[in-house]
Amino acid sequence: MSKLHEECGVFGIYSPDGHDVAGACYYALYALQHRGQESCGIVVNHQGLMRSHKDTGLVNDVFTKDVLDSLGYGEIAVGHVRYGTSGINPAQNAQPLTVNHVKGLMALAHNGCLTNAYELREEQELNGSIYHTTSDAEVIAYAIVKERLKTKSIEDAVSNAMDSLKGAYSIVMMSSTKLIGARDPYGFHPLCIGKLNESWVFASETCALDAIGATFVRDVEPGEVVIADKNGLRSNTAHVGEKPRGLCVFEYIYFARPDSVVDGSSVHMARQRAGAFLALDHPVQADVVIGVPDSGIDAAIGYARQSGIPYGIGFIKNKYIGRTFIQPTQSDRENKVRIKLNPVSSVVKGKRVVLVDDSIVRGTTCARIVKLLRDAGATEVHMRSSAPPFLYPCYFGTDIDKRENLIAYNHTIEEIREIIGVDSLGYLRPENAERLCDNTACGFCTGCFTGEYPCDPPATTVKSKFERSIMEGGNK
Amino acid sequence: MSKLHEECGVFGIYSPDGHDVAGACYYALYALQHRGQESCGIVVNHQGLMRSHKDTGLVNDVFTKDVLDSLGYGEIAVGHVRYGTSGINPAQNAQPLTVNHVKGLMALAHNGCLTNAYELREEQELNGSIYHTTSDAEVIAYAIVKERLKTKSIEDAVSNAMDSLKGAYSIVMMSSTKLIGARDPYGFHPLCIGKLNESWVFASETCALDAIGATFVRDVEPGEVVIADKNGLRSNTAHVGEKPRGLCVFEYIYFARPDSVVDGSSVHMARQRAGAFLALDHPVQADVVIGVPDSGIDAAIGYARQSGIPYGIGFIKNKYIGRTFIQPTQSDRENKVRIKLNPVSSVVKGKRVVLVDDSIVRGTTCARIVKLLRDAGATEVHMRSSAPPFLYPCYFGTDIDKRENLIAYNHTIEEIREIIGVDSLGYLRPENAERLCDNTACGFCTGCFTGEYPCDPPATTVKSKFERSIMEGGNK
Amino acid sequence: MSKLHEECGVFGIYSPDGHDVAGACYYALYALQHRGQESCGIVVNHQGLMRSHKDTGLVNDVFTKDVLDSLGYGEIAVGHVRYGTSGINPAQNAQPLTVNHVKGLMALAHNGCLTNAYELREEQELNGSIYHTTSDAEVIAYAIVKERLKTKSIEDAVSNAMDSLKGAYSIVMMSSTKLIGARDPYGFHPLCIGKLNESWVFASETCALDAIGATFVRDVEPGEVVIADKNGLRSNTAHVGEKPRGLCVFEYIYFARPDSVVDGSSVHMARQRAGAFLALDHPVQADVVIGVPDSGIDAAIGYARQSGIPYGIGFIKNKYIGRTFIQPTQSDRENKVRIKLNPVSSVVKGKRVVLVDDSIVRGTTCARIVKLLRDAGATEVHMRSSAPPFLYPCYFGTDIDKRENLIAYNHTIEEIREIIGVDSLGYLRPENAERLCDNTACGFCTGCFTGEYPCDPPATTVKSKFERSIMEGGNK
Amino acid sequence: MSKLHEECGVFGIYSPDGHDVAGACYYALYALQHRGQESCGIVVNHQGLMRSHKDTGLVNDVFTKDVLDSLGYGEIAVGHVRYGTSGINPAQNAQPLTVNHVKGLMALAHNGCLTNAYELREEQELNGSIYHTTSDAEVIAYAIVKERLKTKSIEDAVSNAMDSLKGAYSIVMMSSTKLIGARDPYGFHPLCIGKLNESWVFASETCALDAIGATFVRDVEPGEVVIADKNGLRSNTAHVGEKPRGLCVFEYIYFARPDSVVDGSSVHMARQRAGAFLALDHPVQADVVIGVPDSGIDAAIGYARQSGIPYGIGFIKNKYIGRTFIQPTQSDRENKVRIKLNPVSSVVKGKRVVLVDDSIVRGTTCARIVKLLRDAGATEVHMRSSAPPFLYPCYFGTDIDKRENLIAYNHTIEEIREIIGVDSLGYLRPENAERLCDNTACGFCTGCFTGEYPCDPPATTVKSKFERSIMEGGNK
Repeated sequence: MSKLHEECGVFGIYSPDGHDVAGACYYALYALQHRGQESCGIVVNHQGLMRSHKDTGLVNDVFTKDVLDSLGYGEIAVGHVRYGTSGINPAQNAQPLTVNHVKGLMALAHNGCLTNAYELREEQELNGSIYHTTSDAEVIAYAIVKERLKTKSIEDAVSNAMDSLKGAYSIVMMSSTKLIGARDPYGFHPLCIGKLNESWVFASETCALDAIGATFVRDVEPGEVVIADKNGLRSNTAHVGEKPRGLCVFEYIYFARPDSVVDGSSVHMARQRAGAFLALDHPVQADVVIGVPDSGIDAAIGYARQSGIPYGIGFIKNKYIGRTFIQPTQSDRENKVRIKLNPVSSVVKGKRVVLVDDSIVRGTTCARIVKLLRDAGATEVHMRSSAPPFLYPCYFGTDIDKRENLIAYNHTIEEIREIIGVDSLGYLRPENAERLCDNTACGFCTGCFTGEYPCDPPATTVKSKFERSIMEGGNK
Repeated sequence: MSKLHEECGVFGIYSPDGHDVAGACYYALYALQHRGQESCGIVVNHQGLMRSHKDTGLVNDVFTKDVLDSLGYGEIAVGHVRYGTSGINPAQNAQPLTVNHVKGLMALAHNGCLTNAYELREEQELNGSIYHTTSDAEVIAYAIVKERLKTKSIEDAVSNAMDSLKGAYSIVMMSSTKLIGARDPYGFHPLCIGKLNESWVFASETCALDAIGATFVRDVEPGEVVIADKNGLRSNTAHVGEKPRGLCVFEYIYFARPDSVVDGSSVHMARQRAGAFLALDHPVQADVVIGVPDSGIDAAIGYARQSGIPYGIGFIKNKYIGRTFIQPTQSDRENKVRIKLNPVSSVVKGKRVVLVDDSIVRGTTCARIVKLLRDAGATEVHMRSSAPPFLYPCYFGTDIDKRENLIAYNHTIEEIREIIGVDSLGYLRPENAERLCDNTACGFCTGCFTGEYPCDPPATTVKSKFERSIMEGGNK
Repeated sequence: MSKLHEECGVFGIYSPDGHDVAGACYYALYALQHRGQESCGIVVNHQGLMRSHKDTGLVNDVFTKDVLDSLGYGEIAVGHVRYGTSGINPAQNAQPLTVNHVKGLMALAHNGCLTNAYELREEQELNGSIYHTTSDAEVIAYAIVKERLKTKSIEDAVSNAMDSLKGAYSIVMMSSTKLIGARDPYGFHPLCIGKLNESWVFASETCALDAIGATFVRDVEPGEVVIADKNGLRSNTAHVGEKPRGLCVFEYIYFARPDSVVDGSSVHMARQRAGAFLALDHPVQADVVIGVPDSGIDAAIGYARQSGIPYGIGFIKNKYIGRTFIQPTQSDRENKVRIKLNPVSSVVKGKRVVLVDDSIVRGTTCARIVKLLRDAGATEVHMRSSAPPFLYPCYFGTDIDKRENLIAYNHTIEEIREIIGVDSLGYLRPENAERLCDNTACGFCTGCFTGEYPCDPPATTVKSKFERSIMEGGNK
Repeated sequence: MSKLHEECGVFGIYSPDGHDVAGACYYALYALQHRGQESCGIVVNHQGLMRSHKDTGLVNDVFTKDVLDSLGYGEIAVGHVRYGTSGINPAQNAQPLTVNHVKGLMALAHNGCLTNAYELREEQELNGSIYHTTSDAEVIAYAIVKERLKTKSIEDAVSNAMDSLKGAYSIVMMSSTKLIGARDPYGFHPLCIGKLNESWVFASETCALDAIGATFVRDVEPGEVVIADKNGLRSNTAHVGEKPRGLCVFEYIYFARPDSVVDGSSVHMARQRAGAFLALDHPVQADVVIGVPDSGIDAAIGYARQSGIPYGIGFIKNKYIGRTFIQPTQSDRENKVRIKLNPVSSVVKGKRVVLVDDSIVRGTTCARIVKLLRDAGATEVHMRSSAPPFLYPCYFGTDIDKRENLIAYNHTIEEIREIIGVDSLGYLRPENAERLCDNTACGFCTGCFTGEYPCDPPATTVKSKFERSIMEGGNK
């Protein structure tokens, strides 16, 4: 684990006259693939009949032409890409989740993490409910179905269910006739609205809108429920404004695609700005600024522009390494990091190098990369991290490592500098993390480096109890 | 559809000291493969942790060495092979079904068909339940979980749930610590108990016991719940004897493997006896008796022995034709039945042939086979069916065709004789169907040819309503 | 290795007006699959352009609809199924072999074994030739191409090449415009001619003609070269009659399909006759005669009819066990033979059983089967083998085991009886092997049990030298 | 076809004490994957026994752990990645080619294109040779084998064969005991020597040395034959210096990986220098310089540095799009180029953009990319191509399109500017193409834009004749 992982990307489309909604999902999920590479799925709704396909693997592997054809045409579709935190049972937890309930069918795709999943689950189980998965999506589905028995519409059920759901969730779901999007009142994770001819589209990021040629309309507000159906787009704002904004700052620093615009700010620009802050706070005399591909490139350009030190291409990344790549054995692993990442000697040889990356998690990969540069002839290496040091766990949908594994939790900055073997080391200052956006109205969750969260984290003991009862295996 | 289809085979093993229970399931499911070729699954329970693998395909395709290894060792395992009646959503309905409920985990494999599935499902949904599958197994799971909230043990929950479950079910299931088998009070489908060293085994047929070297102990009684756990084997007999016996007579005539012994009678012998009855009731002057492979062979030998006409090998069946065999186009289909089944000219040329098969469903395949014989030089063909004519639907787990497609529902025997092009035609007389077994204590369900069922069939309108709301697609 | 293996099946079709020749090959290869399960291939010739597909695996696996479609329509096609003796390099040696030579393209499929392959190969290599495969087919191709440089037609080249080729070969090949079949002057392996509308067909066995609805015309004569082209069928008989007939007697006893007619005699009848000879030569008092499926069934019926002892079904063979079946570990292997083959207790319990099989190679499998019968309650087991004892190697295309592994080479019949654990043991007498056919004009190769071969075997030292230089690996 | 394609990458290793030579090949071929994505293969030589595996697909797909394990350990290995120009018969033409000849086994991997392949082939066929493939590798193999009959060593055979071979070839091959590398006397394509502990390594590019941790020793000289065996490394220089140097200039501009060093010059630096020449020759007032990923990035940095205009990230390339990506239908293709390549609006909106790419072949893709930029708000787009205009065919191993399809052959630069829709257009001047390297001793082949080739191209008529007789299909 040398990088953080996002857990999900969600997408939905409502096409009043029917449309190749499966195809739109397919291209959109390609654009959202960076948000989850473990499993993916699409459910297509044609006049109330829902056809579903989901499996472990990349969009490219799971959705062949035959599979897409078998999903057929429809009026509504929901799609999902997933990165699982648990590492177990990936196929069973693949989404969208399709369920039958008393008033019909429902398909749901979820990005985020509930903080009261265990309590809700236990409550529902005491009422005789059974669970097929270990995902929060099933807990959310139950919460909605419970309200659906008491309300006259699915959107009211969703809004009412939000009273009981705590934590982070960006949901795209559909009933027989409606496409619904919902974002938790803090707005932990992004969700936006687009339009493609007469169709309405909800997506985790704007890059998915671009991929299908849709026009960006606006972001879903924190706490908002948006509904697209034959009457067009409308909104339930019962929960809007009830909580302070808490967008995950890592969406800008690492998760979102640089070409996306999240809550009004360009992700690429936020990263370039991070590089500029680094140059201001941690200046150094050097000959070239390079970024670790792909995640450190944007900030490296920002550092170079601010500092006036030329930007260069320090590494070539092998783009052909796939999932079945056979890892070199431990004995010669260090030697072979360069299969994935090879330094360009002519750029770094005899040079003082500023090396920019987006984060330092355990430090192991970092140390190997630094060694590659020195072997290639760099005379000095100055490391700059466009994220502040990770010190605290994340409870809202990000797969941050255990505290014991976080190098910044165990060591001072000087110690880290020595461990990764650089001449100087500078992190983004936490107060600057909140200044990366153009949109100053934004509030952020910066819990992972400050320990202050917008809402209460779950009780530790409860979380571990839940993990004990978890069910392994897979339904391939 | 030229043949009837069974819907399922179930298997379970409890091994007190731990054991390769996945391996035992694997070999047992191979032996039960004839009961279902659409999907299969195994769940292994190791100290309460359940690992599962299920998928569409034959045991041979779904369980590779890697998959079996990933299931690991355990103390209990449950396995299932399935033939789906609906043809839709095969992967999502694959069993065993693994569910989380308030008191833990449960894995369940089911063979049969409930007659009140729709009512139970609606009742549970009105309570807020959500369904992931369209299978009766999930309805049964809910019924058990509902009782589990009120009882102190899983076996009592199963016994209590049987009050509400109507229709046919042979279940093998496990909790964290127990393996449980249950058979409906009519005993529609078989379920037997075996012993392998210290392990207890429950299986649909004795051929599964043979496959793993287990010894046959006894059949599960209709209405009985048997429990294997660390205290050994015990039984809950609350429902035993409350209903008349109603074993599906087709288990003997067609479904079960000839080397199995069902409720005390050899399947092969029952078929041979059917052939003898045919020879007594429909004698004919002929030169050779042949059976349609594989299902008509046993009865052909019975006919030959009773009549004194020599038994011969009339057809060679191509054993290499697999699932991906490309069907010849319609235009030359008749010509090419012989890719699968080729007559042995030297056996039938110039001969008067008695042709025995186990059933005549639509009559189409039958007519093609008869034509093959005539083309190969047979001078007369006398057809004998070891099943009586199909006239009524089955509601208890057999995939009998729609009445409109049943040749015997639409035509007199003389008309059928003409349609399939034979010189004479004789069916097993329905009263003899009940005399195929050694075990005269047995009562049978012969509803498919008499229209008299041991228990009430479901209301037609309800059944079709249920079908309308069904969810298609697949989680591959 | 408990059975002998044939090495190949060949097929070709010439269709003057163009036709789905790939489809015809496909169905024909299905019918010939028993002659080789290691690899298969089809080459389609459309106006001189040859499209080819071949791979390891069964016809069913190698030829999907997409693959067949990609081969397209054509006027000529050649197909092959192969069992490799070496076990190495199966994909590289897959046939038909397609080669470019100075006068065009050629595709060739071969069944048999040359006795002077090494000498021919060495001679051609000394002339600078390079070899891609280790198969005789490439040696034959070179021999033909060498003659082609000197002759005016491909058929003359084939006929001239036959002067240098020694041993067993049944060849089906095509040039741009002609389909050619050739059989060695001894006629070791079968080759027949059929007609399907205007198309000419050459095949290893008549069951392939039946599979595509073609009519049997005649067998290719030993030494004959037959040519089908736009002028119809014609024949080069330069080598006909130059050698005594030497058809492999094992084609009747084991290799060919029972529904085939080889050189004028029904294979099924030859086997039934073998059973009758066994009953005459090795009579015994018993209650039932059973055959080991599938290969012992025909002879068992012959034994039963001759002896008057009833024929019964002693075993059920599991028809779902495929290539990826996971073998039970050695420790419990004996116990688990019955996964593949389970005795029908009701047939053998308390009975004196005559057990008929087609051959006894090592004796190991035989002993396990006998044990199954005794465990199922048979009181006596009398083994009858429809082949005489194997005592000598085969050099003509049959994969007979090393002498050291042949139980009959190492032991007396009384010793074998004891090893396999039967009450009596009887083999077909070698002199009766030559009396299995109707066609008394036939001469046979019975070298494997007499040591007398129709033509000289290759020098042992040469053969082993060739094996040393062999190339392993695979081009999947 | 919007890009040029290289045809091959070659690699070989000689390890005196035995080694995981298959593993070394595997990692090296990963690094060379950009030189060919159609098929790949590895042959391992263990004490003269050669195990081979090759197939269509990427290294990642073809070589699983099981396959690598099956190749085993050895002393020598040869590997190959291939892009086929013909598009037909990819599996059959996969390399390395393994052949048997009179003095043993040989495996050969080839990068390049012979200009007298047809003549050599015809000459050899007239001698009775047969060909299995349509690749030049087989022609080369024959040429070597022919000489091998007359010489005492394989290396002398290679050197002598070079008298007859015309055109471009970089070969890595092995006999039972030797690894041999050879480069044509013009040195059209690169080949270098590395050392890894006691092992000798030959590779197309230095990035393959880096990938396995080997040290660069030197380039193979044009015309040189290098031999690694138990006596170490030695060289046959009979053909060195006999021709002027003619390294393909496109190795620098496009084919080679930027981190490689070819014939003494860094590829990345050559590209950056191309960008600088463009800035000098085609200056423009602009706000940002962007490159088309990945191939235009290096030159864009060169342009930015020389011009002083800031370098920016103009596009995000979707890195998850694999081989099975389903192309959008023609109707909405333009709209969906952005699935692969999405502009970063915040970088280009309202800006005058310099867009650098490595070449303009047909112009179609270029026009779409320009349109994306304009849609994203770029006010001006100035295109710069780091290659001169393509005007002539390549006969030496590069898959350049037909002249009729080359936009520069059909149009003036002003017309092209209008077609692709840019405000200004500038190409690298041909005379600067030869000034991209540090190593001024280098001579180049610049035939594709000058029409002047270092050696005679093949006769056109001969080439087309050869194409007519080509054999399609595949041995999967």
